Amino acid sequence: MRLYETSETGSIEIEIGEDLQARHEELAQRNREWFRERGIRAFDITGSVGAGKTSLIAAMVERLSPEHGIGVIAGDVATTHDAERVSGKGARKVLQINTGGMCHLDAKLVHRALQHLPESGLDLVFIENVGNLICPSFFPLGAEARVAVVSANEGSHVIAKHPAMFQSADLVVLNKTDIADAVGVDLTGPVSDLQRLRPGMTVVRTNCMTGEGVEEVLRALRLA
Amino acid sequence: MRLYETSETGSIEIEIGEDLQARHEELAQRNREWFRERGIRAFDITGSVGAGKTSLIAAMVERLSPEHGIGVIAGDVATTHDAERVSGKGARKVLQINTGGMCHLDAKLVHRALQHLPESGLDLVFIENVGNLICPSFFPLGAEARVAVVSANEGSHVIAKHPAMFQSADLVVLNKTDIADAVGVDLTGPVSDLQRLRPGMTVVRTNCMTGEGVEEVLRALRLA
Repeated sequence: MRLYETSETGSIEIEIGEDLQARHEELAQRNREWFRERGIRAFDITGSVGAGKTSLIAAMVERLSPEHGIGVIAGDVATTHDAERVSGKGARKVLQINTGGMCHLDAKLVHRALQHLPESGLDLVFIENVGNLICPSFFPLGAEARVAVVSANEGSHVIAKHPAMFQSADLVVLNKTDIADAVGVDLTGPVSDLQRLRPGMTVVRTNCMTGEGVEEVLRALRLA
Repeated sequence: MRLYETSETGSIEIEIGEDLQARHEELAQRNREWFRERGIRAFDITGSVGAGKTSLIAAMVERLSPEHGIGVIAGDVATTHDAERVSGKGARKVLQINTGGMCHLDAKLVHRALQHLPESGLDLVFIENVGNLICPSFFPLGAEARVAVVSANEGSHVIAKHPAMFQSADLVVLNKTDIADAVGVDLTGPVSDLQRLRPGMTVVRTNCMTGEGVEEVLRALRLA
């Protein structure tokens, strides 16, 4: 914990938890091997509630399913809405994991879900993480790449406020750019914060509702 | 964990953690007493990233500061942007807590922050929780009421997806209703999900950027 005061200087720091990183990395490695043995490329799609993770996955599945066998694993605290929204887009299997109260997926939960995918015919898996810009940062799932989806709605400082998430991402998708003016957000803020945090990082601007920018996301992930 | 499949039935459940609820309730009770001894009314403002927590607090502080001594405690993983946005609105003290990686405030962190508030002259404290619709649900802070702020951006199913958060709230503020059409969200969805989950629960619609609805929030909290 760091405590700042606007009218005084001074900060306090406390330990915030035990380091389980090595154990989580080991479990992620098991998934990585699982994917490699089967020739499957896997992608971990993270982002806040309403950022557009499900819309992005639905758009990618629709575009790629004629040529690819796709599995989707959607994580949420409760409900199966996300799986339902992706269904009918051409994936061979869509699974919904409900975590109960947990604010992220972890490699162990994903590993259990993988056992429910078809035994053959898949070459792509999209994993939709729980809607949250904090917890998933600390839990590698064993995917080839992590995509962090941010919507313009999340404010001018969303990147700076969540450094761990964007440190852990391989690609940032800036979605719903059409509403930036309506919510009073200047998008140069998040983009320049990202360049400071992760110099050279690829940012793709999308409107996943209309499909704008989705092709560029696929190219960035070497899926098109 | 519950695992659902869209093309098969069947679910798996696992334990998701140890019950620390009693300990957290005890720490919240300590804060409740701290507030009561000083005649301070405290409010815990929760919601996702970009929902409008800071804007709501800034608007309430601006409206109430001529007649009240107000302290604000803003929680975030990193940065002091939220405290800065609330500063200059008339609060006697604005504190920023950075949790490092933690996805919520807890009663203990809040208790430490309280020691940095002015020793007299306060009668209201607004606590802005970390932007997250999951973790804060499980951590009572000892405030008189919890307000959950949801923006239209967060989708039609945001309430159903986060039952614990809305079970723990005393008032729901539906913000940024002006962008609902632009993001393709039908607001009757969240409102009717909430009525199922919490029959009779008060929902106030706001646009915290323009101040619309803020007076109604104050009335619902018996602050006006």
